[in-house]
Amino acid sequence: MLVNQFTIQTSERQQLVDITSRVSSIVRDWDVPSVLVYVPHTTAGILINEHADPDVAADMLTALDAIVPVDAGYRHAEGNSPAHVKTSLVGTSQVVPLEGGRLRLGTWQGIFLAEFDGPRMRKVYVSAL
Amino acid sequence: MLVNQFTIQTSERQQLVDITSRVSSIVRDWDVPSVLVYVPHTTAGILINEHADPDVAADMLTALDAIVPVDAGYRHAEGNSPAHVKTSLVGTSQVVPLEGGRLRLGTWQGIFLAEFDGPRMRKVYVSAL
Amino acid sequence: MLVNQFTIQTSERQQLVDITSRVSSIVRDWDVPSVLVYVPHTTAGILINEHADPDVAADMLTALDAIVPVDAGYRHAEGNSPAHVKTSLVGTSQVVPLEGGRLRLGTWQGIFLAEFDGPRMRKVYVSAL
Repeated sequence: MLVNQFTIQTSERQQLVDITSRVSSIVRDWDVPSVLVYVPHTTAGILINEHADPDVAADMLTALDAIVPVDAGYRHAEGNSPAHVKTSLVGTSQVVPLEGGRLRLGTWQGIFLAEFDGPRMRKVYVSAL
Repeated sequence: MLVNQFTIQTSERQQLVDITSRVSSIVRDWDVPSVLVYVPHTTAGILINEHADPDVAADMLTALDAIVPVDAGYRHAEGNSPAHVKTSLVGTSQVVPLEGGRLRLGTWQGIFLAEFDGPRMRKVYVSAL
Repeated sequence: MLVNQFTIQTSERQQLVDITSRVSSIVRDWDVPSVLVYVPHTTAGILINEHADPDVAADMLTALDAIVPVDAGYRHAEGNSPAHVKTSLVGTSQVVPLEGGRLRLGTWQGIFLAEFDGPRMRKVYVSAL
């Protein structure tokens, strides 16, 4: 079965959740060259960055808060336009190469669900490519 | 035929054009796990975000204008460096999972061509993965 | 052999290195619909943008310096948080469609390794999709 999915209950308004081991265990038996990790949401994304030092994830959220204006004359009535913008800056998905069912991530790389408008229940789709 | 393309004539200098239904009708008979939506341009990109409320697309352009400096001592003589930068921030392509020829987009997700230097005629490549 | 890789020794702290011809020669015999270009690093990314005028690459780095704050109260002790953030803004990989072993890039498009914390030896993975 080369399509799978799981859910994550986030606990903060903004949060980077390390999902590397979840993805890793799903693809363990997959004899395919790469995998797509995708979120079907518009205020949460997927990014790859350092997961050895959790400060990097914290700094990412700090920087995105500095980059995306809180109020720029937005029209969207729900008031969460910055979360939509952050999602398009980091991206809705990532593709990771595989080798013998093992993610070919670099030494410092981890896969994160990036929550920008939580806490919410989020879905992650994992598909063979 | 698992490779297709279409053209879009944009009408504004900056504009998010919802191409979800165009892509959707192309992949209808594709029995593959996912699809690549790609633009062969350097001042237009592809992004996935909310298409239920058109204000989200408008806010995205407003925010990108606030994020990318209009003048930062750019050297490119054409004067459209901010459009090149925005393209690399949102990305040149998106990958979307498929199931039985149906895009597995989330409830609120749509696929947009992001025009940053229009109006122009733009191409969109759609390929099976 | 539909998986390949090469290394790049960057020479500057920040630099966009055009790797289009390297990727192009690797995929020459690949009869597949697209290719993944991926870096296993957290302070370097991959982006697609104009490579006809080298000023565009220079302007990209100038703009990213203006976008990502040098100091926003970061916690990561190594002091290179802006490089991590820039990596997630441009992305860790790009997917490019292929046709008969030829990259279907647009007229102005090139593939760049984006170095944000060099000079370093960087790896680039190239895999068939």
